[in-house]
Amino acid sequence: MQQNHTEISAIGEFGLIRRISDLVNIRLDDQSLNDNLIMGISDDAAVYRPTPGKVQILTSDALIEGIHFDLTFMALKHLGWKAMVINFSDIAAMCGTPRYAAVTLSLPKKISVEMVEELYAGASAACKKFSCLIVGGDTTASMANMMVSVTVIGEAEERQVTYRGGAKAGEYICVSGHLGASVAGLKILKREKERFSKISDLREFKPNLEPYAPALEKHLTPKPRFDISSIFRERVKVGAVIDISDGLASEVHHICAGSGVGAEIYEHNIPVDSLTQRIAAEFSESPVDYALFGGEEYELLFTISDAEYAKLDRLTNDVSILGRVTEKEKGIGFIRENGEREALAPGGWDHFKTR
Amino acid sequence: MQQNHTEISAIGEFGLIRRISDLVNIRLDDQSLNDNLIMGISDDAAVYRPTPGKVQILTSDALIEGIHFDLTFMALKHLGWKAMVINFSDIAAMCGTPRYAAVTLSLPKKISVEMVEELYAGASAACKKFSCLIVGGDTTASMANMMVSVTVIGEAEERQVTYRGGAKAGEYICVSGHLGASVAGLKILKREKERFSKISDLREFKPNLEPYAPALEKHLTPKPRFDISSIFRERVKVGAVIDISDGLASEVHHICAGSGVGAEIYEHNIPVDSLTQRIAAEFSESPVDYALFGGEEYELLFTISDAEYAKLDRLTNDVSILGRVTEKEKGIGFIRENGEREALAPGGWDHFKTR
Repeated sequence: MQQNHTEISAIGEFGLIRRISDLVNIRLDDQSLNDNLIMGISDDAAVYRPTPGKVQILTSDALIEGIHFDLTFMALKHLGWKAMVINFSDIAAMCGTPRYAAVTLSLPKKISVEMVEELYAGASAACKKFSCLIVGGDTTASMANMMVSVTVIGEAEERQVTYRGGAKAGEYICVSGHLGASVAGLKILKREKERFSKISDLREFKPNLEPYAPALEKHLTPKPRFDISSIFRERVKVGAVIDISDGLASEVHHICAGSGVGAEIYEHNIPVDSLTQRIAAEFSESPVDYALFGGEEYELLFTISDAEYAKLDRLTNDVSILGRVTEKEKGIGFIRENGEREALAPGGWDHFKTR
Repeated sequence: MQQNHTEISAIGEFGLIRRISDLVNIRLDDQSLNDNLIMGISDDAAVYRPTPGKVQILTSDALIEGIHFDLTFMALKHLGWKAMVINFSDIAAMCGTPRYAAVTLSLPKKISVEMVEELYAGASAACKKFSCLIVGGDTTASMANMMVSVTVIGEAEERQVTYRGGAKAGEYICVSGHLGASVAGLKILKREKERFSKISDLREFKPNLEPYAPALEKHLTPKPRFDISSIFRERVKVGAVIDISDGLASEVHHICAGSGVGAEIYEHNIPVDSLTQRIAAEFSESPVDYALFGGEEYELLFTISDAEYAKLDRLTNDVSILGRVTEKEKGIGFIRENGEREALAPGGWDHFKTR
């Protein structure tokens, strides 16, 4: 796919930094970020002015080859995008806005200069879209696997920040968008990789991805829900907010643990789109399990009072009520379509359990 | 060495976070850091109040198994210390003070819960000593190598920040401490590992490390030079400042490139202690090459006017004049003990070149 393959050892770490600096030194629509950056990636550390009166929000998330991504079906441009966006999503869950980022890459020998440029092109596209500047990081060699570790600094007014500990019994528990599509997309990618590995004549191989495009997109290039978090920040008061990185079930447990509450989630309320249902059917699996345990959705799970929900409902069509926050003593219940109540399994996608 | 070996998969990512949270939630002497931390490691992101009027300093540095460290001779406690301190050193080079940090770990299966606790004990000891709070990060599995990626946020008054671009022709170029000991220590560790691997009866093996303790300490548990940077901040005006992570030669080139100047460095001025000279002699190598190209010193290289140097000289004995900043046209010269002038090789420790 790459036209050229320049070994990083041919230009060294500092040569590589020069090659990527044009990709990260972008001009943003919100020029205050450019103006308040005093020193970017060309010194020991980056220096910037915080916005007076605002608090800083710091988050780090890493993507590791073999654990979070497979380069046989993940383009470097998508990897760069996703590494930024999973961090932006954490900032969205706190109702902040991203400002500055540091990107640390650990690169095995197979990764060329051109591949690193592809990755930064994707990272930079995400930064341009969601107003963030890459101002630092580290680039090192790696013996085996590739690793992308990103730290993002965001800002918010202190009273606007939302936490997973903010839920109160009686509130609705809601989610943005649809769930399950990310893991559904991953399953398609893995199936095509499997098919590809079994074919002897490569000319015969035509990957069958087109019909699944929206699910693949959800997996490869997720979007942080700043559209929803900006409503929370300016128009509607919410309780707890968390982003769905490990799966709905795991995040419900996090909100309940953080807030000291229980919850009741109704199976028939979980928003799963028709493509995800179709993919689950192809694998003879449950689309609801995809939603509960799949993860990597980057939708927002939140709690809200009835009165505030009525306001929210007039501002967006893209949220669903899943159930209610309850007293802690009631536990965390999952009510099946047939009305039977069971305990919601806490399991999410834990890479330590599955390795 | 470890008494217990609990597999991380037995307690999962969230169980691991609970086990380490006591190690990172420390009370600092400077309690303003504790007081201004609004949310630590238990939410999507950390939230803190910046100090009004100060600028923020952001730096990231990673340590990768097989590239930067070898677990056969690096204790996890030392690794945790060093991962923090190499970032603190970047903050010192900007004349800032550390505030908050995010630690991202990527852990292969061989790493137990107890080993992660050891690592955090070392990181926490560094944080306690140099006043920083770990407030976030990410913990993931890894297929092969271990990785520690740290981001530190520091603060300074805007006018106090020092850059590598601040050197002017005519200034002295100086360095703190002594050079070459870190790579000398590493060579001893590698030699003992080699000896160990060749011995058939393990009872016969007694590592010979005691006589080299100061060099090993310099390599395994380096100290950031906040003692020197606080003098720069409060008492003495300096030009350019950079920390020596890649080797003296490489850092001189960075200052010259950043400031648009040249330099003359005198071989006989390079401070190398007697232990480093002894170790270099054991390997029939040049101690000056250790100083020029060894790296991982975490001393401060800086430029300063004659008048300010006179002030500095009364405040510390631990700095040496290496030479002079010159006009750019003069290039970057290295004057040998015999008086011959050569161009200073730009080479430092570039892990992409040596892998």
